[in-house]
Amino acid sequence: MSWTKALFEPHAVAVYGSVSPGKIGRVLVDQLLDGGFREIIAVNPKAAGTDRVPGVRSLGDLPEDRRPVELAIVASPAATVPEVLKDAGEAGTQAAVVITAGFKETGNAAAEEKILDVAAAYGIRLVGPNCAGIVNTKHHLFPTLETRPPVGDVAFVSQSGALGGAVLSWAEEQKVGFSKFISYGNGADLTEIDFLDALREDDESKVVCLYIETVSNGRAFLRAAAELAAIKPLIVIKSGRSRSGSRATLSHTGSMAGSDAVYDAALRQCGAIRATGIEEMFDLCRGFVSLPPMNGRRLAIVTNSGGPGVLAADRAEAEQLEILPPSDGLRARLQERLVAFCGFENPFDLTVQGDSAAYREVLCEVLTEYDGALAINVNVPYLDAAPLAQGVVEAAAATGKPIAASFMAGAPAAAALPVLEAGGVPNFATGERAVRVLSLLAERERGGERRDRSPVSIASEAPGARDASAGSSEAATAGSRDLPWDRNPLESEAMDWLETLGFPVIERRLATTPDEAVDAANAFDRPVAMKVVSPGIVHKSDVGGVLLNVEGAADVLEAFDRLHRTAEGHAFGGVLISPMVAAPVEALAGLSYDAQFGPVVACGLGGIYTEALRDLSLRVAPVDRNEATAMIDELRGVSILRGTRGRVLRDLGALAELVARLSRLPITFPQIQELDLNPVFVLERGVRIGDVRIAVAPRSSDRS
Amino acid sequence: MSWTKALFEPHAVAVYGSVSPGKIGRVLVDQLLDGGFREIIAVNPKAAGTDRVPGVRSLGDLPEDRRPVELAIVASPAATVPEVLKDAGEAGTQAAVVITAGFKETGNAAAEEKILDVAAAYGIRLVGPNCAGIVNTKHHLFPTLETRPPVGDVAFVSQSGALGGAVLSWAEEQKVGFSKFISYGNGADLTEIDFLDALREDDESKVVCLYIETVSNGRAFLRAAAELAAIKPLIVIKSGRSRSGSRATLSHTGSMAGSDAVYDAALRQCGAIRATGIEEMFDLCRGFVSLPPMNGRRLAIVTNSGGPGVLAADRAEAEQLEILPPSDGLRARLQERLVAFCGFENPFDLTVQGDSAAYREVLCEVLTEYDGALAINVNVPYLDAAPLAQGVVEAAAATGKPIAASFMAGAPAAAALPVLEAGGVPNFATGERAVRVLSLLAERERGGERRDRSPVSIASEAPGARDASAGSSEAATAGSRDLPWDRNPLESEAMDWLETLGFPVIERRLATTPDEAVDAANAFDRPVAMKVVSPGIVHKSDVGGVLLNVEGAADVLEAFDRLHRTAEGHAFGGVLISPMVAAPVEALAGLSYDAQFGPVVACGLGGIYTEALRDLSLRVAPVDRNEATAMIDELRGVSILRGTRGRVLRDLGALAELVARLSRLPITFPQIQELDLNPVFVLERGVRIGDVRIAVAPRSSDRS
Repeated sequence: MSWTKALFEPHAVAVYGSVSPGKIGRVLVDQLLDGGFREIIAVNPKAAGTDRVPGVRSLGDLPEDRRPVELAIVASPAATVPEVLKDAGEAGTQAAVVITAGFKETGNAAAEEKILDVAAAYGIRLVGPNCAGIVNTKHHLFPTLETRPPVGDVAFVSQSGALGGAVLSWAEEQKVGFSKFISYGNGADLTEIDFLDALREDDESKVVCLYIETVSNGRAFLRAAAELAAIKPLIVIKSGRSRSGSRATLSHTGSMAGSDAVYDAALRQCGAIRATGIEEMFDLCRGFVSLPPMNGRRLAIVTNSGGPGVLAADRAEAEQLEILPPSDGLRARLQERLVAFCGFENPFDLTVQGDSAAYREVLCEVLTEYDGALAINVNVPYLDAAPLAQGVVEAAAATGKPIAASFMAGAPAAAALPVLEAGGVPNFATGERAVRVLSLLAERERGGERRDRSPVSIASEAPGARDASAGSSEAATAGSRDLPWDRNPLESEAMDWLETLGFPVIERRLATTPDEAVDAANAFDRPVAMKVVSPGIVHKSDVGGVLLNVEGAADVLEAFDRLHRTAEGHAFGGVLISPMVAAPVEALAGLSYDAQFGPVVACGLGGIYTEALRDLSLRVAPVDRNEATAMIDELRGVSILRGTRGRVLRDLGALAELVARLSRLPITFPQIQELDLNPVFVLERGVRIGDVRIAVAPRSSDRS
Repeated sequence: MSWTKALFEPHAVAVYGSVSPGKIGRVLVDQLLDGGFREIIAVNPKAAGTDRVPGVRSLGDLPEDRRPVELAIVASPAATVPEVLKDAGEAGTQAAVVITAGFKETGNAAAEEKILDVAAAYGIRLVGPNCAGIVNTKHHLFPTLETRPPVGDVAFVSQSGALGGAVLSWAEEQKVGFSKFISYGNGADLTEIDFLDALREDDESKVVCLYIETVSNGRAFLRAAAELAAIKPLIVIKSGRSRSGSRATLSHTGSMAGSDAVYDAALRQCGAIRATGIEEMFDLCRGFVSLPPMNGRRLAIVTNSGGPGVLAADRAEAEQLEILPPSDGLRARLQERLVAFCGFENPFDLTVQGDSAAYREVLCEVLTEYDGALAINVNVPYLDAAPLAQGVVEAAAATGKPIAASFMAGAPAAAALPVLEAGGVPNFATGERAVRVLSLLAERERGGERRDRSPVSIASEAPGARDASAGSSEAATAGSRDLPWDRNPLESEAMDWLETLGFPVIERRLATTPDEAVDAANAFDRPVAMKVVSPGIVHKSDVGGVLLNVEGAADVLEAFDRLHRTAEGHAFGGVLISPMVAAPVEALAGLSYDAQFGPVVACGLGGIYTEALRDLSLRVAPVDRNEATAMIDELRGVSILRGTRGRVLRDLGALAELVARLSRLPITFPQIQELDLNPVFVLERGVRIGDVRIAVAPRSSDRS
């Protein structure tokens, strides 16, 4: 028997812990009974039961014909949990939900190790400890302290028990029903990854929601999330945006690729939908459970009131939905149907004349050329809104296209809401909120197309094993190699190394004497750029260690001298001389290492704009060239890289190629901690790496 | 008697129109009666009344002892409205609310003019036509078709009747009470400006909300909004963000200063709070009505559950509130008070142990060093939330600082909500929504300080009268002058002109022959920049009309020749030669002319970055130097202008001075349609205008 069956569809449940009135064991027993579950056994030292549930001292005392008890719910004190699991395990229990707190979350990691050991010895899979329980509404199973939610098609997995409880309490009012709920607490054994895998195959869950504050294994999470999202919508609330803390970084990429930005990129990469909070999660659930796919971004807004229609249209355009005017043919058909002073543009305004037939017919008509519709109704107290809702419901059935409703608000709308619900048309408090959901509905279809084109390689690909917490479970990749240095290389060393790997590094010569400098400058078309090379100087331009546009031989000599002086007090590694690039367009490409997800690749504007604008695209590495192109297209400043009017177009294909190749580097060289290519000169044909900085991690896996 | 008294506090009301069952006149009469108003007279050709209201053919038929009837509510057909107003006016009525539609909004502007004429002849002030009526809850006056809202301290003025109705319907559920509601429809006579002025002085309205799609007179609106916002919070929903349409523009400033961006700037300038939609408006009302001022941005979050606390903290930081850790002293005091495994950082996590005393004491304690607090509670079904709410209420009373609550959700929280409401602590559906309100509460206090320092000059200052719809009602300003051209000037002409006005224009020489070009180049330190001057060439760089870094005499000659050739087919005005600026930092400063608000001033990054990044600060002109400094500080790319590391700091003071001076130019020269200074070189000391483009409007006021 699989753990999922034992956990979610047990024949019998044991509740460990006191069932005296007011005790948590008693609350659990009552919840189970009230939810309609019957096969319950209370287990505690006094063998105490309740009036409706028998009690035993040990599950072993149970008569043979009442076994097996597949699931144990544990609410006994922390110190007793190992004994409890032993007792359950000996009786053949296969899954346990440990509600009891007082383990790792209070610093007691040893106790948590101990219960894991016992569970493993008996083949019990654990939920918790320190969790709020689980729910399987369709099995009438409610071993939880939280409100019993209505039955429905949404599964919800929550790292926070209290937040999970808030969601369940709110579900009725929000008109969202749940199939399953799992609060996994400390996740000592089963984690969000296991539940994502289980819910992927669960036909009773059409939509999966996840609340996380952190993940246990970034790459494994990505794999599980991507596989689930390929089949059904995965809605994720990730909190702790601002908690990334500040770690000292050497590179631009490292300082800007904060943890939350990486989560954001990772969630998008695996096709999950990131909700900003609980309300948006509910909105998305309502939409994704009921609505058919939206196969494009053209939205029609049909309303009986101008103001709310315009507010929704504003939001729609902000969400990149297209609020296009109708074709001439459609406009003519609508004009035939509607009275003269209605609005025939988009939003389509039925005015107060909009009756049931008007909603139905206009929605059916417009959906011949739009991908989805929003039906807004603002009613007055003396009119009946129910027939209008009926018109919307009929249009949804007739067209098979997504129609969201916003029947606003209070008493005048009350009669409409059950009609919409019965007809499977999700209703939203405001048109703006409906539009947000429709936008993500369309986005999911588009994402689906992209996933078909290029499957998420990051999830399956070994990132170069370096750190168990962030790497995959695979051992060190066969092809992984050491970097040639144990320390951070000098710029000149890093450039030489990248060149041997086939990266397009700018021409350069290292001069250690003034004469060599003049020779080097003569070798290039002058003017040249000259930079000091010294292990002690991290930010060269801060100390005047970069001189541009150096022209004549005398100037080269003077420049060499000045640069030499900037290295005073440090080791002097020479002066690096390169030709100046005419009309430079500067990009940045980089790598950093995220504690959760491992290697991350970045691109953005280069030079002084990198930090000033913080305009950086991130992905968990590696990416292919298509994905690298998408990264470049996302940049606010993409038109600067592309080359603006009156200038030559720049070779963004070569930049994408560079980013994609760079993103594979950490697979071969897991010791790369941070890497900046900045600037990367984007030319009319090709790119040239103008500067390189690499931070090297220790070879051992002892990094914190 | 003032129109406000007649409109909002009439002794008697006449309802014009049929009062047969189902007719609008009857709905109005019933609404008035149900709301508790008694002195009602129905006026219609049949002199029909209802069982509770007498009917007359004309108000003049009313016995003397029942007059005057100060207010007429008009629901009779459009064609009858002039006669109706005449009838009411002859009987001494001073205000009329015309609910009847079919005027300007259906193209019938003449009918609207006619009713305005009649009203003016009798001194009647009009609300409407095509409106949804008004409400004065404190006078039991509900002449409206919409839901009667609960009594409270919020006044709501709406350009859209239906949206107004949706708000009123929702008010009960949202726990927001209203003092007054005004739907002004077409605003033929009284407009949002009149109502803002009236509500400024209205002691029964503590907070004013406004829904607008457009304003009738930008400058007058700004004046009224600023004066109101100086006294009480003004919350504005402005829809039609995306409706600006695209007009062809010559300048960067013009193309980016779209209408909605100008509204946004204008609303901020006058101290109004822009809400994104109805839900946020309700949240803001609840907060601003109940909460004391928040005199800083340090927020403490006190919660009994980690997850929701972290979500709120994330949002708080996104809203620029400061989620700082407690001082050591405070932490020690909290540790004394709370059990060991509570969270002593911010958010402060009371865990499930958090009882009434814990909420009260911890809130009181933290508010000794924070400016405001958010109290989050996630309850479980078997615990009573009311005492916890009581703890929060007591803390609010004891500290006198703003405390918002988020008691989440459904049945477990239900008992807490009346306690919070009775205690004047606003509750929000989520912590994130509470945080948004607290942020705007703090913002308002900060704005207040700014308003004290520099009063809104834009509102009172004449923008240079040029167009009645956008200018103030003042006639052409005495000091206004014509520009020296009737057409768009050449760059060289514009530069000369600005220089005569004392603007810091870059050194330059105009060369019309190759020899003059060499002489000019010799006059400067080479290299030089050379640009073609031709009235036919708008985008010089698109046609190769700008050559930079021209060095030797031979190069200057060749450059002159090339530039001359770019002007082929156009008139050739010569070549403008300027010294190159070393290590340029380029800004843009500009002017445009907004149809609603008149002259608008902008600043941003210059050169190729202007369009690529669309990073532009806007204000309605003029601005003082402080405001110009704030504009520069708002730019995402401000650090580029300031000068990044390793480079000299740039003179942003001089840039602010330039922007402030520029912003006054349209007062003197109202014919400036658009003006771009781009680039403006920001130097270590001072600034230099590198290029000027001016679009000139016709002198007459016949522009569309």
